[in-house]
Amino acid sequence: MNFLDANDSDPNVMGWMQGSPPPADRLVRWADMGMYTFPKLRWAMSNYIQLRPSKRIDRGIAPVSPLALSLRHDLDAVMSTPMGGTQAHSWADSLLANYTDAIVVLHRGQRVYERYMGAMDERRNHMGMSVTKSFVGTLAAMLADEGAIDVHQPVTHYVPELASSAYGTATVDQVMDMRIGVRYSENYADPNADIWNHARAGGVFPPRPGDAPPIGFRAYLCDLQPEGEHGQGFTYKTVNTDVLGWVLHRVTGHDVARLIQDCFWQVLGMEHDAHLGVDDLGTDFAGGGLNCTVRDLARFGEMLRCGGEWQGQRVLSERTVASIASGGSQAAFATAGYQTLPGWSYRRMWWVSHNDNGVYMARGIHGQSLYIDPKAEMVIARFGSHPLASNVHNDPVTLPAFAATAQALMA
Amino acid sequence: MNFLDANDSDPNVMGWMQGSPPPADRLVRWADMGMYTFPKLRWAMSNYIQLRPSKRIDRGIAPVSPLALSLRHDLDAVMSTPMGGTQAHSWADSLLANYTDAIVVLHRGQRVYERYMGAMDERRNHMGMSVTKSFVGTLAAMLADEGAIDVHQPVTHYVPELASSAYGTATVDQVMDMRIGVRYSENYADPNADIWNHARAGGVFPPRPGDAPPIGFRAYLCDLQPEGEHGQGFTYKTVNTDVLGWVLHRVTGHDVARLIQDCFWQVLGMEHDAHLGVDDLGTDFAGGGLNCTVRDLARFGEMLRCGGEWQGQRVLSERTVASIASGGSQAAFATAGYQTLPGWSYRRMWWVSHNDNGVYMARGIHGQSLYIDPKAEMVIARFGSHPLASNVHNDPVTLPAFAATAQALMA
Repeated sequence: MNFLDANDSDPNVMGWMQGSPPPADRLVRWADMGMYTFPKLRWAMSNYIQLRPSKRIDRGIAPVSPLALSLRHDLDAVMSTPMGGTQAHSWADSLLANYTDAIVVLHRGQRVYERYMGAMDERRNHMGMSVTKSFVGTLAAMLADEGAIDVHQPVTHYVPELASSAYGTATVDQVMDMRIGVRYSENYADPNADIWNHARAGGVFPPRPGDAPPIGFRAYLCDLQPEGEHGQGFTYKTVNTDVLGWVLHRVTGHDVARLIQDCFWQVLGMEHDAHLGVDDLGTDFAGGGLNCTVRDLARFGEMLRCGGEWQGQRVLSERTVASIASGGSQAAFATAGYQTLPGWSYRRMWWVSHNDNGVYMARGIHGQSLYIDPKAEMVIARFGSHPLASNVHNDPVTLPAFAATAQALMA
Repeated sequence: MNFLDANDSDPNVMGWMQGSPPPADRLVRWADMGMYTFPKLRWAMSNYIQLRPSKRIDRGIAPVSPLALSLRHDLDAVMSTPMGGTQAHSWADSLLANYTDAIVVLHRGQRVYERYMGAMDERRNHMGMSVTKSFVGTLAAMLADEGAIDVHQPVTHYVPELASSAYGTATVDQVMDMRIGVRYSENYADPNADIWNHARAGGVFPPRPGDAPPIGFRAYLCDLQPEGEHGQGFTYKTVNTDVLGWVLHRVTGHDVARLIQDCFWQVLGMEHDAHLGVDDLGTDFAGGGLNCTVRDLARFGEMLRCGGEWQGQRVLSERTVASIASGGSQAAFATAGYQTLPGWSYRRMWWVSHNDNGVYMARGIHGQSLYIDPKAEMVIARFGSHPLASNVHNDPVTLPAFAATAQALMA
């Protein structure tokens, strides 16, 4: 397929939602699926709460924590060669190739690079998509470390409603690492994949003509049937995170939005309130609903890079961070066949590289990423609006570019 | 009609949206109109963005402005007698009688009283309903004072699209004071009143079975037909504020959410981002979409009480504030027949008492109010969730109680 490039598809160039009112052919709406369709999605990614209901994740009234600026103007010229390619390109060009909306690079906690493109600016919240999962996985790892969750318990110990679903025979540990045998397909290129029914159940997608009213995320989970064994290969399925969010709610009495608020947003000196998408019944979209600024995403990453400490204050135990960063089974991951992620694993809803730098990532479709490189003392928070959902389409550019920047910072 | 009292209808007592997921009979939803139905509306009033799309009104990252605490515990015992009644009751009892959700009383800029009930707390945004109108009217008065708007121009000078509507023959001045001859009824007790079609056009209310998709606020305005003369008696019609919001957008190039943000939220040291409800096409609900904390509402009122100055910084010209506070035509107001507001007028979308204290108010259905008493150097911001929409049902308690508190503070 041929898509408009990053400059030509810039939402300001396209004129989405400009004018009072905008012309009919410049509207971006939920009801007609426009918000999920390139190039309109480039605008929607920075304007989610205007299109859908959400819960506020309150930063509180404490001062904003400093993120010192120490720009490295040389980074724009750092060269990298996309996977499978022969032609090197610059960091600046890689941002365009990936339809970047916002990027912050922290080195030793200082902002060495920061840029906004398209509809984004430093105070806007951008859709984080499945980056949300890594927040949920981190909360679960934290609660497990504190003894509040026993990961070896069956899921039904916490959520009996799931007894007759595929999750009736799974443990919390298996859910946390997505080693679940459940009939649910998440091939973003297939319009009949189950992920879209999941999205419709939660109202993330609008109903099609003739559809019954949405049943809500949790009723959808209860209907999921088994397919294969638990505890075997890693298979990436968003429903697992929704199940984990349900467990967290039962264990703590608080929903995911509140937990992210109390555990991270109110303690990291975040600049702006975040938002979490919800279904019609008030259920958090744990698998993909977080919207936040790119700086605040970087703060979360920097806290992890520092072993769970944030500007002198302990937020997570070192054990919790290590349980994520050390990764999971590479053999279990290999069966999923991710061409761009050889030797990686999936652990507590994080993607772990096992490379020399110890890189691990939170990843969401259309290019959302939080890239933590402990050896380079670097964190990259990047939002994008790539025309194609799967990150297999931007990894070939993203991963070499991020690695080259790490290299430049270590030099 | 008989309604549960404030204690029995407390959303926490009712258990709305509690549990994971909430039981079916404890859900509060938009789709079934539950959010607008007492007692569920008591929960919805403090949770709007979870139920409907909204735009963020960004406070920025400046420090929160101080609102010093100087509690006057004696105020709970201040007695007042409801209009038409013989039995006096205490301030504390008046709060319950009015289904108060949140109230802040400022005296000389200090918080002398502050209380949260029901689903509210100090960091929650509450639906402001038509209190929104007074923000829009203030912006218009400000722009008129600066010469950016000529109030004597016809509305169509700014918005030609309204030429064949009732507004085709109106001036901006007439819109700003709601002296418009337009066929549109706003009797909240009448289920067939036009206000509900207006709400459905903007998606504020859900479509009924068989309804066409909502056409949006602005298409609705263009269809409104004349009834009577412009420039005669005051008739309160929410569509006038939506027309004024459209004028503001055309004049400034910014929507109402952005104007409230840039002119007030970023300069008054607000504690929290506010939100503004929007229709499906991204049009701000200028007539009633603002959601904010009660403290931030009080800050806006205090700035006006201080003649447009906020903690040493000029926000509005003294002329702009005087053009509101001095009121409009009492004769034009009298024709509307408000029993609880004898001698009042309506000016720049504010309700002006013309009493000895020079009180003026922003008012929204179900008890939303911003009460400014220049003589008593007092501002009261109050959110409520009274079972009945029209303020005629709470004014008999509210107005004597607020006046008695002013008296106590002046003593």
